[in-house]
Amino acid sequence: MDNFADSLIAAVEKKGSPACVGIDPRPGLIPQEITKGIRQRTDAGGRVASALAFSREIIEIVAPHVAVVKPQVAFFESLGAAGLMAYAETIAAARRNGLLVIGDIKRSDIGSTAEAYAASHLRQLCDGDEVGSLAADAATVNPYLGSDGVMPFIEAASDEGRGVFVLVKTSNPSSAEFQDLKVGDGPELFMKVAEKVNEWGAGLVGRRGYSSVGAVVGATYPEQASRLRAVMPKSYFLVPGYGAQGGSAKDVAPSFNSDGLGAVVNSSRGIIYAWTRSPYKEEYGERRWREAVEAAVKDMVAELREL
Amino acid sequence: MDNFADSLIAAVEKKGSPACVGIDPRPGLIPQEITKGIRQRTDAGGRVASALAFSREIIEIVAPHVAVVKPQVAFFESLGAAGLMAYAETIAAARRNGLLVIGDIKRSDIGSTAEAYAASHLRQLCDGDEVGSLAADAATVNPYLGSDGVMPFIEAASDEGRGVFVLVKTSNPSSAEFQDLKVGDGPELFMKVAEKVNEWGAGLVGRRGYSSVGAVVGATYPEQASRLRAVMPKSYFLVPGYGAQGGSAKDVAPSFNSDGLGAVVNSSRGIIYAWTRSPYKEEYGERRWREAVEAAVKDMVAELREL
Repeated sequence: MDNFADSLIAAVEKKGSPACVGIDPRPGLIPQEITKGIRQRTDAGGRVASALAFSREIIEIVAPHVAVVKPQVAFFESLGAAGLMAYAETIAAARRNGLLVIGDIKRSDIGSTAEAYAASHLRQLCDGDEVGSLAADAATVNPYLGSDGVMPFIEAASDEGRGVFVLVKTSNPSSAEFQDLKVGDGPELFMKVAEKVNEWGAGLVGRRGYSSVGAVVGATYPEQASRLRAVMPKSYFLVPGYGAQGGSAKDVAPSFNSDGLGAVVNSSRGIIYAWTRSPYKEEYGERRWREAVEAAVKDMVAELREL
Repeated sequence: MDNFADSLIAAVEKKGSPACVGIDPRPGLIPQEITKGIRQRTDAGGRVASALAFSREIIEIVAPHVAVVKPQVAFFESLGAAGLMAYAETIAAARRNGLLVIGDIKRSDIGSTAEAYAASHLRQLCDGDEVGSLAADAATVNPYLGSDGVMPFIEAASDEGRGVFVLVKTSNPSSAEFQDLKVGDGPELFMKVAEKVNEWGAGLVGRRGYSSVGAVVGATYPEQASRLRAVMPKSYFLVPGYGAQGGSAKDVAPSFNSDGLGAVVNSSRGIIYAWTRSPYKEEYGERRWREAVEAAVKDMVAELREL
């Protein structure tokens, strides 16, 4: 069986781009064309309907251009329990459009509880009944609890031909606060986590040389990415923070290996709300939001091709 | 307005116990009396119905004895999107029974995404429409992303009179892997996280002297708990790992302050599946599972009273 990295590489090669689009349906930013006629301000069901309609449209616009999307479960969860059904339907819509799906869930817990999360996000729900399944092709996982919080995800991924991306160096401004603390005489905490990621993936390397245990490495920290690339040569990197968070094509270059593989680069706000930002705002505006999204994703694909 | 710690202390004093019962509905362990007649093996809806029915029964059994319950969202999430509706209904049932609810969610993400999680788990869902709200009275939060992953939860909690428990030293066997790494010449990572927790809560201290920013400190690590108590004098501790995970009454003693306050002690499996474990298994068995649960919670309350 191909492992997740094999499938990801095949999909990236087919589309000709390592770009990933983050699906973050924020109630206040969804185009009015979608929300009009749906009660938005006081009705949770209306917000869920809008979030799902918007997510489906985004998927159809970006599917010809990218291999993978990354729905952020927090934005569905913020709509209450019904929001999770929209998350499940978003994953299903992405699959119907031939996309791989990375569930950005950042879960983790003690062993027996981590098993429940791993089942939720990486395994089949019930025999023959997949309505409401939250399982994606890969999931992001938080390492703070150590191996027994992470291994259940790796085992589920391994059983199902799916993948895991462990948070190593996150893209946010305060990621240094704990992640960059120097451990004893040695390097930073994020490097210790990276060593473990490399270890966890060692027996799970696929045909193309990459393991099913990947790492989240923010585009906003290119120097650290370069050191991390050396410590985890066989891990695929999920690189968030491109675009709206400030990461450029140059910043993501260190996350790739010399084979041109090894990283998928994610942009969320910069693509899906392109019409709210220059230069797309001026050129398209909200009325032509679909064209703005398509222009932004094409521009990102072109920028990454320069690498 | 009372802060969350004030409400928690009032509730603990009223019930006369710092015991907390964890609600972990594991499909394979729910009594057959509940699952019979509900399609369990292949039907996700049946599993959701069983999990909710079981959670409600547990709440009614333990409500006379404890002040607070801790539903673990992972076990609801593992049932798919519909499981989250059962989680919402479990929170609602606990509130109807006069209990405070700690949502064990262990979420965290970059700032703008953490805001979405915080809204989901600590704020009102929509004006006048709370069906499917996932908000509890407090939530557990993972610190790996640093301040900007945690502050949105603290702000939401502060706005709503609710609380946060930051993972500091977790109860699981591999918690040492990263949490116990020595930082530079100084103490361990968990102590650095504890210093931050103390800092984050400094301006949020309530009438009774405790802040709304608490800490998760496993019952399985009593020596560390004693050091953590000194670093976070004004934080309430949520102490998991009592009972089934191996923590005893003696082990949780260091988590309390000299005022007899400062900690709530959680047991999940040891209470809610008491009839599967000695001595309750022999005395009650599955047929009398309700009596086993009640006996176990009464025993825990009595053990903690010896402190």
